[in-house]
Amino acid sequence: MKTAKTMPALNPTRLWDRVDALAQYTVPGQPWTRRAFSDLFLQGRAWLRAEFEAAGLTVHLDAAGNLVGRREGRNPGAKPIVTGSHCDTVMSGGRFDGIIGVLAGIEVAHALHEQGITLEHPFEVIDFLSEEPSDYGISCVGSRALAGLLDDAMLNERDQAGETLATGIARIGGKPGALSMPLRPAGSTAAFVELHIEQGPVLETNNLPIGIATNIVGIRRFKVVVDGQPDHAGTTPMDIRRDALVGAARIIEAVNGHARRMLDGPHYVVATIGHLLLTPNASNAVPGHVEMMLEVRSDSPAVLETFAEDVMSEVRASVESLGLQLACTQLSNSLPTDCTPFMVDLIEGAARALGYASMRMPSGAGHDAVYLAKSGPMGMIFIPCLKGRSHCPEEWIEPQQLLDGTRVLYETVMALDRSLAVD
Amino acid sequence: MKTAKTMPALNPTRLWDRVDALAQYTVPGQPWTRRAFSDLFLQGRAWLRAEFEAAGLTVHLDAAGNLVGRREGRNPGAKPIVTGSHCDTVMSGGRFDGIIGVLAGIEVAHALHEQGITLEHPFEVIDFLSEEPSDYGISCVGSRALAGLLDDAMLNERDQAGETLATGIARIGGKPGALSMPLRPAGSTAAFVELHIEQGPVLETNNLPIGIATNIVGIRRFKVVVDGQPDHAGTTPMDIRRDALVGAARIIEAVNGHARRMLDGPHYVVATIGHLLLTPNASNAVPGHVEMMLEVRSDSPAVLETFAEDVMSEVRASVESLGLQLACTQLSNSLPTDCTPFMVDLIEGAARALGYASMRMPSGAGHDAVYLAKSGPMGMIFIPCLKGRSHCPEEWIEPQQLLDGTRVLYETVMALDRSLAVD
Repeated sequence: MKTAKTMPALNPTRLWDRVDALAQYTVPGQPWTRRAFSDLFLQGRAWLRAEFEAAGLTVHLDAAGNLVGRREGRNPGAKPIVTGSHCDTVMSGGRFDGIIGVLAGIEVAHALHEQGITLEHPFEVIDFLSEEPSDYGISCVGSRALAGLLDDAMLNERDQAGETLATGIARIGGKPGALSMPLRPAGSTAAFVELHIEQGPVLETNNLPIGIATNIVGIRRFKVVVDGQPDHAGTTPMDIRRDALVGAARIIEAVNGHARRMLDGPHYVVATIGHLLLTPNASNAVPGHVEMMLEVRSDSPAVLETFAEDVMSEVRASVESLGLQLACTQLSNSLPTDCTPFMVDLIEGAARALGYASMRMPSGAGHDAVYLAKSGPMGMIFIPCLKGRSHCPEEWIEPQQLLDGTRVLYETVMALDRSLAVD
Repeated sequence: MKTAKTMPALNPTRLWDRVDALAQYTVPGQPWTRRAFSDLFLQGRAWLRAEFEAAGLTVHLDAAGNLVGRREGRNPGAKPIVTGSHCDTVMSGGRFDGIIGVLAGIEVAHALHEQGITLEHPFEVIDFLSEEPSDYGISCVGSRALAGLLDDAMLNERDQAGETLATGIARIGGKPGALSMPLRPAGSTAAFVELHIEQGPVLETNNLPIGIATNIVGIRRFKVVVDGQPDHAGTTPMDIRRDALVGAARIIEAVNGHARRMLDGPHYVVATIGHLLLTPNASNAVPGHVEMMLEVRSDSPAVLETFAEDVMSEVRASVESLGLQLACTQLSNSLPTDCTPFMVDLIEGAARALGYASMRMPSGAGHDAVYLAKSGPMGMIFIPCLKGRSHCPEEWIEPQQLLDGTRVLYETVMALDRSLAVD
């Protein structure tokens, strides 16, 4: 599969060792957990800051709490070529998710530093703050703020201890008062490219080392509530029950069926009921109330617009025939984000130049790249992960897969530096 | 509906006031909660002991922690006629469930005391310890011990604080070391009769003041586990998911459908999935694991024997077609308990003598009476409750309904005293 083309002068051992070293900053007994804003996270960042510096980068923490390493370019007026991802994790999961995007960026910088290569553009590597949903309920905290989209309502969200997100950002060294304007306004970056694990099984199934995102799906989330009546499970005959869980079961089946029927269609569509709470939730009580979270993801705005409404229309009569009430309210709505077409072409060309086979694919997961797309051209590089597993302790990649992706990242940065106009 | 027959000399105000007074022993802000073994429960029992004594009863706490009030009979060799129920509650529910069976018994004793009536038999009123599932996971603690069925394994069950049931019984004044033999062996009671709210809607729907239990249903409980694979909800296409919640939905629907199809059959059958836990239970994760509790209740041993097995056979192929594993294991199995036929006749006759219309019906709920049936003849009197609601704050009866039931209880005790042979 590989050509004889000379590979970038990366240090695979150093790259992998950094992944290993950062993984040690985990809650003991619950690998791999390093929640944003926690003490462990700050310890990890102190380590990370030293690695940035070892790679020859000048480091600062921006007002949004993003850790930014910068290598100046030859042309003082040029906008930066930016890469990066995030080093926070979900509970129990994410040994590579996000992390490799930061550490691969550091390795690219380190290789440039060792070779004494100065690019035309400044080169920046960013560890974005809290890409995963934070304890304050907000995800992509740092990248969202770069785009000026971290609003006052979000800054005032509180964690379980009652601390606001604004206070949390200040606690780790950011300046929440400076976030009312975009820190990286439109046109302020030459390009952004993020390396990430696929978090799905498509590359592994197709035995391909590299994926190139064409877009990042939009996500609509809904709260679905089924109301019946809690009753004694022994004394309430079947024909007068109003069992909310039976209604919920019909909705779960309908959501699954509706999404599966779209498998042959032109769009990427996944729909999930991943969260369900039952009351009273006792073995001897007829369930009176069920709350569920429905999440729909697609690269098609039209599918996002209609999916939940169509399923509820399909199932409403059947649910109501059980004496139940059904309510579905939208919690959030983010549209799909297209990757910049010339970035898709350029990454594909970089992979090809290194002899890697690749495929174009949508990203079913959200990423910091969504918000960086507000500041300039954006693209994403995917590498396979074992069995497509992610957000779990079993998440795994091989060192060679990480090296493959980092090489394509390096080559992409070089190609961007060559091809992008310098103002 | 009533005849001109003279009613028993009960004091309706005193009866209702006692219900009201005991209700005040509740967790503030969470009515009506008085959990067995709690400080509140002990305070309620101190009040109860004084009421026993005011009604002329001699009180003692037996080795199982049951509070027993006794009125001696004329014949020193006669076995006791026993009534009673329980004063503990589930969380947030049960203002009348159990309570009225104890307080009606006290009122009957009080009326006998005021009228100077001495029965042939001793008359006993018992507040059984912890009929509701206790914090140690065991229900019918006191009545089970009377039958010698509170075994060492149960006595060693622990609550969340780590206290064993044995220690809890000792803490409230019982003698757990004395429970290896039945405290009330077979043949030791002349008869047991329990007044209880129906906890279902049948009497209210039929506009009848009195129900007479023909039997108490058997209960089988099962743990149903569906295993799939937790995956990222954004990146895992619909056709390679193994979503445990979709499988669970099919089981929920099948359980409900199977039980409903038995509505036209000869037996009382209810089946409920009232408890469900989902892992990871996150909006952006495909559910990998679902645990449910399935409860089947019936007056038919054959239905109890086959219900869960039949449903699992029906649904297994469909669940496994989703790439899921299904396991159903029995947690508990109690057979139906028939009420003693002559007790059913006798209670029916007592109601008729007082001019009350009545109906025979199964009890869909479990009761202390199940265990008292091991010691002698057993019967149960039901009164309606509002909309059939029970185990919830809205549980309600009217004072007249309580008086109706207490009158039938009084008349039943008198009829038993007249008709039962004295050894």
